[in-house]
Formats: sequence, structure tokens, C-alpha cells
Amino acid sequence: MTETDNTLDPAFEAAYQAAQKSLSEGGIPIGAALARGGKVIASGHNERVQHGDPIAHGEMSALRAAGRQTSYRDTTLYTTLAPCAMCTGTIIQFKIPRVVVGEAETFPGEFDLLRSRGVEVVVLDDPRCVDMMRTFQEEHPELWAEDIAE
Amino acid sequence: MTETDNTLDPAFEAAYQAAQKSLSEGGIPIGAALARGGKVIASGHNERVQHGDPIAHGEMSALRAAGRQTSYRDTTLYTTLAPCAMCTGTIIQFKIPRVVVGEAETFPGEFDLLRSRGVEVVVLDDPRCVDMMRTFQEEHPELWAEDIAE
Repeated sequence: MTETDNTLDPAFEAAYQAAQKSLSEGGIPIGAALARGGKVIASGHNERVQHGDPIAHGEMSALRAAGRQTSYRDTTLYTTLAPCAMCTGTIIQFKIPRVVVGEAETFPGEFDLLRSRGVEVVVLDDPRCVDMMRTFQEEHPELWAEDIAE
Repeated sequence: MTETDNTLDPAFEAAYQAAQKSLSEGGIPIGAALARGGKVIASGHNERVQHGDPIAHGEMSALRAAGRQTSYRDTTLYTTLAPCAMCTGTIIQFKIPRVVVGEAETFPGEFDLLRSRGVEVVVLDDPRCVDMMRTFQEEHPELWAEDIAE
């Protein structure tokens, strides 16, 4: 099943709301959602601050929340920010065929690696996501550096 | 700091014992340990069965258990089985410079990707690890297929 443009928004909004929730908790504002046929299976956000969990990037938290799945071949992963190498490797490993990304201005991610393994990458250039991350990076440079291991 | 051959074993044994613990719990027998200067920081094992957590491969569980680290540049990750794309992406993202792998006979992992990003990969060819995984794969083919999304 393939999402059409009409069904993209609710799943992306779930990712964006998860990022906003994390921000409101004092956490890193990156959120994600896994959807199948336009329906959100699960969403999640970065949990480094909330749970001291370095592997809990937004995408990873959404996949954890989705639990055990027989297959991801008919899913799309939505995320507010371009996926890092960890999340990229996970998308490849789980054979998720399509990723919808809020923005890649404040962090480039690993689009070349994703595409080299056949993953479709859609970038929304959502200004809300750019503003959210830029503000966070300016206000918490040490936390941002820690999250990307710099 | 660099581990010498003398200090490799205790950290690898921690990974192996974590895999054995998972096996004894009815889980997937893959374990890992993160070490710094020969000292184990944390170990972990696959938790797909135990906690219904698809992102909790052995390496990921060890990294989660290690909690927030300022840097991984002086660490080595030990794992009983060749790292999949998820764990490979995580090693790259976390800038872990060195990975010691029990075996790559029963699963090839992503050594080319690891090495292309400058990660040193050491393979021990440990027959205990090969036996452990081969037996598991033969006895639980559906669980193994699920864990590697096949």
C-alpha cells in the first residue's frame, strides 16, 4: 500500500507533535511516527534527556513503540529531522522503503546511504521543524553535540 | 587508550555471558559489551522476546545500559555476532572506533560499511558463538527471520 499526498499529513503531524512533547519536557525536540497505509502505528520522540537513553532518537522510539512487526515493507517512517547514521542503519535493516523528513537544513543526515540502499527519501522543508531545531541547537549546543556524538 | 590482547577477553566474555543469559530466558542469544580501557562499562543482550523491543539488539542494549556518554572515541564494542545495519549505523553515529566480533559465519553483518567509515573490525571466529547462533537459527527460524526483518 502506498500513501498518497492526502494521507501524508496526519502521520507527519504525529511526528511533529511528538517532537513538541519532547520539547515541553525539556528534551530534544525530534519526533517520528511509523505509519502503514496512512495510519499511524506508533510515534515517539528523542528520550536522551527524559530517560538517559542515548539510542532513543525519535525514529528509534517510534519503532520501539510499534513493537514487534512481521514486516515493515508496507510502512513509511516520518521524522521531523534528517535521520542520523543510527536511524539510517535501522531503516535499512528493517527494510522500511520510504522516509518522510521534516527538514535537513539543521542536520544533513545520511540521505546518500539511504538512497544507495533503495530507500525513498521525501523532504518536506517544513519551516516549523527548521525553527524548532535551530532554536534548540542555539539554546542547548552541548546537548545537541552530545546527541550527535560531536 | 587501546586494549591489548590481554584485556580483550573479559569484555568479550561479558558479551558472551549476556548472550547466554538471553538464551536461558528464551530470548535471542546475541550479547554485547561496551568497554573503555579494557574495563566493561555495560553489557546487554537482544530483548526482542523478553521486552517485545525490536530495536534492542545486543549492541543497542549494551549502549542503552551504558547511558549517556560524553564520547565513545576511547571505547571498544564487543559483540557475539557481526553487527547488522542498525548496529553498524549506531557504531558509526556514536563514533566507536573499534568493534570486536565473536563470529560472522552465521550472519555476515555490514563489515564493508563499518570499514568504509574507518571502524576497525576484529573477528574472533569463536566456535562457541557459531554453535550458539547456528543452534538457535535451526531451532527458531521464524524468530531469527523476524529479528533480521526477512
